[in-house]
Amino acid sequence: MPRNAFYAQSGGVTAVINVSAAGVIETARQYPQHIGKLYAGRNGIIGALTEDLIDTSLESDAAIAALKYTPSGAFGSCRYKLKGFDKNLAEYERLIEVFKAHDIGYFFYNGGGDSADTCLKISQLSEKLGYPLQAIHVPKTIDNDLPITDCCPGFGSVAKYVAVSIREAGYDVASMAKTSTKVFILEVMGRHAGWIAAAGGLAAAKEGDAPHLILFPEVKFDQAAFLARVDATVKKHGYCVIVASEGLQNEAGQFLSEAGAKDAFGHAQLGGLAPLLAGIVKDGLNYKYHWAVADYLQRAARHIASRTDVEQAYAVGRAAVELAVGGQSGVMPAIVRTGDAPYSWNIGVAQLSQVANVEKKMPRDFISDDGFHITEKCRAYLAPLIVGEDYPPYVDGLPAYVQLQNTAVPKLTGREFKI
Amino acid sequence: MPRNAFYAQSGGVTAVINVSAAGVIETARQYPQHIGKLYAGRNGIIGALTEDLIDTSLESDAAIAALKYTPSGAFGSCRYKLKGFDKNLAEYERLIEVFKAHDIGYFFYNGGGDSADTCLKISQLSEKLGYPLQAIHVPKTIDNDLPITDCCPGFGSVAKYVAVSIREAGYDVASMAKTSTKVFILEVMGRHAGWIAAAGGLAAAKEGDAPHLILFPEVKFDQAAFLARVDATVKKHGYCVIVASEGLQNEAGQFLSEAGAKDAFGHAQLGGLAPLLAGIVKDGLNYKYHWAVADYLQRAARHIASRTDVEQAYAVGRAAVELAVGGQSGVMPAIVRTGDAPYSWNIGVAQLSQVANVEKKMPRDFISDDGFHITEKCRAYLAPLIVGEDYPPYVDGLPAYVQLQNTAVPKLTGREFKI
Repeated sequence: MPRNAFYAQSGGVTAVINVSAAGVIETARQYPQHIGKLYAGRNGIIGALTEDLIDTSLESDAAIAALKYTPSGAFGSCRYKLKGFDKNLAEYERLIEVFKAHDIGYFFYNGGGDSADTCLKISQLSEKLGYPLQAIHVPKTIDNDLPITDCCPGFGSVAKYVAVSIREAGYDVASMAKTSTKVFILEVMGRHAGWIAAAGGLAAAKEGDAPHLILFPEVKFDQAAFLARVDATVKKHGYCVIVASEGLQNEAGQFLSEAGAKDAFGHAQLGGLAPLLAGIVKDGLNYKYHWAVADYLQRAARHIASRTDVEQAYAVGRAAVELAVGGQSGVMPAIVRTGDAPYSWNIGVAQLSQVANVEKKMPRDFISDDGFHITEKCRAYLAPLIVGEDYPPYVDGLPAYVQLQNTAVPKLTGREFKI
Repeated sequence: MPRNAFYAQSGGVTAVINVSAAGVIETARQYPQHIGKLYAGRNGIIGALTEDLIDTSLESDAAIAALKYTPSGAFGSCRYKLKGFDKNLAEYERLIEVFKAHDIGYFFYNGGGDSADTCLKISQLSEKLGYPLQAIHVPKTIDNDLPITDCCPGFGSVAKYVAVSIREAGYDVASMAKTSTKVFILEVMGRHAGWIAAAGGLAAAKEGDAPHLILFPEVKFDQAAFLARVDATVKKHGYCVIVASEGLQNEAGQFLSEAGAKDAFGHAQLGGLAPLLAGIVKDGLNYKYHWAVADYLQRAARHIASRTDVEQAYAVGRAAVELAVGGQSGVMPAIVRTGDAPYSWNIGVAQLSQVANVEKKMPRDFISDDGFHITEKCRAYLAPLIVGEDYPPYVDGLPAYVQLQNTAVPKLTGREFKI
């Protein structure tokens, strides 16, 4: 007898998490003998806890196919981390209660490191409680910090957005530098690792190209060295383009944007690094500057998604279902690089016990000795991930992204659950 | 006998000013009986004053064609406004000196309102001094504030970038709002007019879509009304997306970003409005927020240029040369809208005397009565300008923008000119 499946999106959404959703749903529809209905959690795992399920079987094939070019989380996502068994067993028991009520035998969790941990716990709990459930994690994070997998779906598209934007802004500043802006700073995401900032480095095809400096969270900010390098770059090339990771830290290990800008902005949320750096440039060098903060634009930019990323996002979604119907649990499809040039990859299987709570950092040899750029080794790793375009359809000049009906599944547990 | 031509790019560059350059150069090459060599000013009009000319005849047809998909100013631009005859006749005389030395009979100036004024003065001076020169202005400005022409090349592509970005960010925030960001603010350019911010409104196809609020320079900022509207929007739709024009002013007519943030940022340059508004939202409503500042990314974003804009940018470049070889001077090709639905346009001719020093403002009836959105009339005007995509070629995942050789023309005047 087929059993139903549950799918949820977790954490910050990306340009291609819906591509993975399409991979899960379309593949599930190919296995009617194993999988009955596929329910999605409205707003992620919260939808499971509150029994707020979406019946994806009511969505047309065309609507599901349209997820392949629609950014964001089509069913809603959430930032909600389940605690450990000892601290909040009630939440896990509630999940099993909801799953039982809806005869859910497959659990697909689409997220980053935290949700890999949750997914592992759920697979363990189902064993403990004797409730048969196959829990498969579907990797997703723009932070690119999951272990084992070569890269994380979502990252390649942010990487492409940042590299393209820096190339374009670099051309702009170069053409204006004679009488106007000489220093341009783009702040990008990356709280703990510099993967996204590093991707900006791909825009520099040859000596002198933008970006001229990259500021990584992995390299403590040295103001004097920074100003000296900016000044030297302006004197040599006429202008200086900088990619700065929001997670840049001072010598004391504080986020620069908090340590330096708390009074100025009146709050401690990250995202104010670029104006802070601009102020440092102005005070130290008095060059005319401009700055940009890409924020959500970078992770939502489906219009300039990497085709490689789109293909990988779909492949992990499809593989998750194939692993489940193949009887596996507590695993995650992982991207395995089989060649650099030409780039080739396939899908392998990672044990969640090896994924949960492990953060993949940028290797030190991916950052140049002076700490201000990427190495050739880093470039060889990153370059294939942004290759290819995969444009959404447009209507009247705007991308025709889909909004699903998201029809609720009738509740069966007969009780509320407070989160 | 053919005479040489001079072309210069002026002011802030755009995603499509090089398209106009290609239109000028390719068309000039079709009139060898009228036009000999076409020289470009290196860094705009400064190149003419300092006799730093670029010989575009040394660029291949393929390189010139590649300008059609390359953002920025291929020859360099500058922010340098020539003063009036009375205040600085020396500069005008110097221009004529350089033009004489290089037998320049055609002057093509690609810019906004200030350069239209300069172009007019040069056409007048050539008459006064008895030096035959046909001066044609080629319209360009993302500010969309030139009169007579229906729109300004460069604007449509910024408009598309902002509309696409807001649609994407809107989807992102909508899917996260349950537990995370509820208010998102995108700051866009537009110091004196809200055209670019208005374009963000195109992303809202139906009630409830992002953007929910647009803040225009034309509408004085009313903090209480703003907070009330943000709060009501979050309560009704779960989230609120805001497009804010950098030129937003307080009741006293000061730029909000200067009046409010001078102490905080330590400088008065515009571009810090979004974090300021975010702080107002936090203090007043305590919603979790994010903000982005697009800055140069918006005007350099050739990767998502409007095909309509690209076609118009080329058409005005081509028309400029045709007007010149047709004997005209002191004029500007203007885009004439001949139909809204379906959109149609052709190229007319505007007298520079009617263009110079006239700024086209957003009509009041383009802004909704409450001051927070665009009207249907505005939508009907803006919508066609973002229609169509015109993707650049990509190599290794990055747009293959061209860099010209920009070979200098030997100097002939025998004297330096200090600017």
